[in-house]
Amino acid sequence: MCRWLAYSGTPVLLDAILYRPQHSLIDQSLHARMGVETTNGDGFGVGWYGPHVETPAVVRDIGPAWSNHNLREIAGHVRSPLFFAHIRASTGSAVQQTNCHPFRHGRWMWMHNGAIAEFHRMRRDLALAVDPRLFLDIEGSTDSEMMFYLALTFGLEGDPPGAVARMAALVERVGHEHGVEFPLQMTLAVTDGHRLWGFRYSSERASRSLFYNTRVDTLRALHPDVGFLQELSDETRLIVSEPLGNLPGAWIAVPESTYGVVQPEGDELRPFVPEAA
Amino acid sequence: MCRWLAYSGTPVLLDAILYRPQHSLIDQSLHARMGVETTNGDGFGVGWYGPHVETPAVVRDIGPAWSNHNLREIAGHVRSPLFFAHIRASTGSAVQQTNCHPFRHGRWMWMHNGAIAEFHRMRRDLALAVDPRLFLDIEGSTDSEMMFYLALTFGLEGDPPGAVARMAALVERVGHEHGVEFPLQMTLAVTDGHRLWGFRYSSERASRSLFYNTRVDTLRALHPDVGFLQELSDETRLIVSEPLGNLPGAWIAVPESTYGVVQPEGDELRPFVPEAA
Amino acid sequence: MCRWLAYSGTPVLLDAILYRPQHSLIDQSLHARMGVETTNGDGFGVGWYGPHVETPAVVRDIGPAWSNHNLREIAGHVRSPLFFAHIRASTGSAVQQTNCHPFRHGRWMWMHNGAIAEFHRMRRDLALAVDPRLFLDIEGSTDSEMMFYLALTFGLEGDPPGAVARMAALVERVGHEHGVEFPLQMTLAVTDGHRLWGFRYSSERASRSLFYNTRVDTLRALHPDVGFLQELSDETRLIVSEPLGNLPGAWIAVPESTYGVVQPEGDELRPFVPEAA
Amino acid sequence: MCRWLAYSGTPVLLDAILYRPQHSLIDQSLHARMGVETTNGDGFGVGWYGPHVETPAVVRDIGPAWSNHNLREIAGHVRSPLFFAHIRASTGSAVQQTNCHPFRHGRWMWMHNGAIAEFHRMRRDLALAVDPRLFLDIEGSTDSEMMFYLALTFGLEGDPPGAVARMAALVERVGHEHGVEFPLQMTLAVTDGHRLWGFRYSSERASRSLFYNTRVDTLRALHPDVGFLQELSDETRLIVSEPLGNLPGAWIAVPESTYGVVQPEGDELRPFVPEAA
Repeated sequence: MCRWLAYSGTPVLLDAILYRPQHSLIDQSLHARMGVETTNGDGFGVGWYGPHVETPAVVRDIGPAWSNHNLREIAGHVRSPLFFAHIRASTGSAVQQTNCHPFRHGRWMWMHNGAIAEFHRMRRDLALAVDPRLFLDIEGSTDSEMMFYLALTFGLEGDPPGAVARMAALVERVGHEHGVEFPLQMTLAVTDGHRLWGFRYSSERASRSLFYNTRVDTLRALHPDVGFLQELSDETRLIVSEPLGNLPGAWIAVPESTYGVVQPEGDELRPFVPEAA
Repeated sequence: MCRWLAYSGTPVLLDAILYRPQHSLIDQSLHARMGVETTNGDGFGVGWYGPHVETPAVVRDIGPAWSNHNLREIAGHVRSPLFFAHIRASTGSAVQQTNCHPFRHGRWMWMHNGAIAEFHRMRRDLALAVDPRLFLDIEGSTDSEMMFYLALTFGLEGDPPGAVARMAALVERVGHEHGVEFPLQMTLAVTDGHRLWGFRYSSERASRSLFYNTRVDTLRALHPDVGFLQELSDETRLIVSEPLGNLPGAWIAVPESTYGVVQPEGDELRPFVPEAA
Repeated sequence: MCRWLAYSGTPVLLDAILYRPQHSLIDQSLHARMGVETTNGDGFGVGWYGPHVETPAVVRDIGPAWSNHNLREIAGHVRSPLFFAHIRASTGSAVQQTNCHPFRHGRWMWMHNGAIAEFHRMRRDLALAVDPRLFLDIEGSTDSEMMFYLALTFGLEGDPPGAVARMAALVERVGHEHGVEFPLQMTLAVTDGHRLWGFRYSSERASRSLFYNTRVDTLRALHPDVGFLQELSDETRLIVSEPLGNLPGAWIAVPESTYGVVQPEGDELRPFVPEAA
Repeated sequence: MCRWLAYSGTPVLLDAILYRPQHSLIDQSLHARMGVETTNGDGFGVGWYGPHVETPAVVRDIGPAWSNHNLREIAGHVRSPLFFAHIRASTGSAVQQTNCHPFRHGRWMWMHNGAIAEFHRMRRDLALAVDPRLFLDIEGSTDSEMMFYLALTFGLEGDPPGAVARMAALVERVGHEHGVEFPLQMTLAVTDGHRLWGFRYSSERASRSLFYNTRVDTLRALHPDVGFLQELSDETRLIVSEPLGNLPGAWIAVPESTYGVVQPEGDELRPFVPEAA
């Protein structure tokens, strides 16, 4: 449906992650291997934190990433310690900028691969559950943005894993009320510019693929000849929809029904369970 | 804010109305005289009924009409007895296809110039008033499309003037509840492919400009030298945000708080008064 | 590289050919089977002749055909006896409207799948060979449009097969001068609104696929149950980059180094040989 | 026709120059005061030098600058000591990215307001004068880009004023050969990332407006209360199509037939005279 990557670590030119790897996100826009569709050409977005401003910059556009000159220019000139990138394969909602990921609210960014099953039928009920003051800021028509605003309603800024668990529980409850057996399918990335959370979950326990990289110091020991690894701090972490290449030992699958957090005080993996608000 | 025109009568190439007149809608996209803004460059749309299909074709795009090649191609090759055209100046909502007019629902088209004052604050309350089965079909984020779906909820397909009156009353009531003195400003065109309604109304009784043309037989008598008039039936009718040229006697202002209907059994003008559902 | 289709026969809604077939051109935009790339998402175009105007309408846009609402609207409402449609996979030149096919010159349309090998190195020499009065009208930067203007220079409007043969010979000569072994790879459609020519040729005699349909009367005898065939005249003819479905007996490959002409006085297939001007 | 600005000095967020001033370039996209057209909505571009890469980043897009979200995001997050920004009003050539300014060649950027009169008639002759190796890199169809490649052909990288003078002389000679009385109208900005040149010239000696700012130390003495001036170095320099505001004493017109250079060893103004190669 979509593919994404989230990067946290040594500041790099976006290009080094978005374009250079053998099976980069740009390559995945034409040739995804693990997605439902091989083509992800219905828009893209990149969001990055920089040194000057606390909120992230978010550049999004319709049309395929593979032919977008502006994305290439930005990637070749912007350096960031924490950024998101997303390529979209629409599951029905319109191809327009306001439907492209990542979504932003203040310092927070959110991006998603997956879907709420039969979202159009549930959209109204879910919209009603969004805090009316937050409802004003919804710009597009995707399930992904609705999930973000539900999570914000449920306290994302204070407790991201808890807010996502409450959002997931609501989606499942509303889905079941509409007779949908497996309402939610999601791999999700969330950040406030300091910490980064990744979630892998689906109602039917058959979630889309999600991977993260082995610690860079381990990778350097395995592959002393890979120059790029020399430039990265030990803690540099990527979370990706599918591996960016074939480097042996580099990628670890996020287990089913799990979330991870990348943070200065040490990364962690924990079970993810939806939980009624 | 926007400019529009609605045509009903002898089938013509769209070009004859969209591009040829001295102060055509395309000219108005750069040089509107009576609008709030002189530039209407935030997207456009054209919708037409043809001989083969009962629903209208609706072609919309972001970007200015004045430089759009595809609009020119369509206008130069498509002939229609009933069509809408609209150029947009956004009052805040995103520049995207789903926010461009005309909007369509089945056989019906709707387009609008004006605004619901402080719409973002009222959006949720208005959305709740839309029939849940219709709510599914809302694609964009404009006040104009919301007004359409409210009117559909209030019976547009059976009684257009009544449904628009009930929509207007609801918008005013919700606006007043939010402390907005003059909630509604609208000039509106609606059609089912057979009849055409135009509305001019605003809560403060200072509505945007709206005009219609003098009967063609009268115009022909006044201007026997204007070739184009020879080709048009007596009943051919245009409703426009501003006159398309300076032909003396050609244009009549729609009075404040008034609607008109263009129909085979004779055109009519009637007072327009919002009326609670 | 690209995929295209050319239709000549009973007037139909474009939709019947562009969207309805099992492996329609729109399906090929995501899932081409016989092309160099499976994805053709770098723009598209459609050109049709109608009853009112002698020149064809040409609507082109960047972005993928599969998600384009305007193409779907036009296809669902425009009926034509002769039209071209093209989906593009760029081989390097910019993704912009002026590089989308079909190209038009007066009453003529031209579209192409293939490439001039190392075109950027030959571009200047080829440009110099274009008639200076025609040179003014070149709008884009593709090899395909250059081939069109060379063919126009060499008399396309009087003798299409001869002009294409002279164009091909020039491209091969200039290519050889630049040390390119196999300069030309092309499948080409040309029309003046009355007759339709299709060419299949490549310098290395390994041309891209090209097919045409069996006569409709034969197909009807083979498949009396296929309703759509009942509506088409015996002479209705499609030329396509790849078959639109799996109907047995429906599609015949155009032989290597061959061109065909579809015309009222009977269709013909002839050998194609480049021939110096 | 177009409006532009070039900035050189203390690194600032682009936003401070592009959006914040009272009559900013973004405001000029809707309400230019000194241009031929008040609307400059046919695309835009921004090019900046950053700390990590020697070549500038160039982001360009079709559509109006005033509604472009990505431009706003970039301007709000990118800081640069030397950048160009341009808004376009097409004088006929297509609205497409490859026709948007600034143009780039290696480390060099070029942007232009003006026109070669009857360019379409001269285009072929001018194209022939471009160094064949450089010709390969021409991507669009504007007179402005052709002027850039002619100047590169005539030694821009070694002697910018001389190369521009030779380009201007050629354009005037070819124009006169085609019977054009006043072939050239230009205000031009050129940079290699270190120095910045601005040119104001026209064959009829009635050139488009061009201004630069008074030295910042002088401005600070005049306006001690304007906070923004405190942050800028004495040498910070803007060259603009029209003043960005009404600060008394802030803006000086570039004289007719003059060029200026902004450089570490002191800025200079010199007469500009076309000069045959």
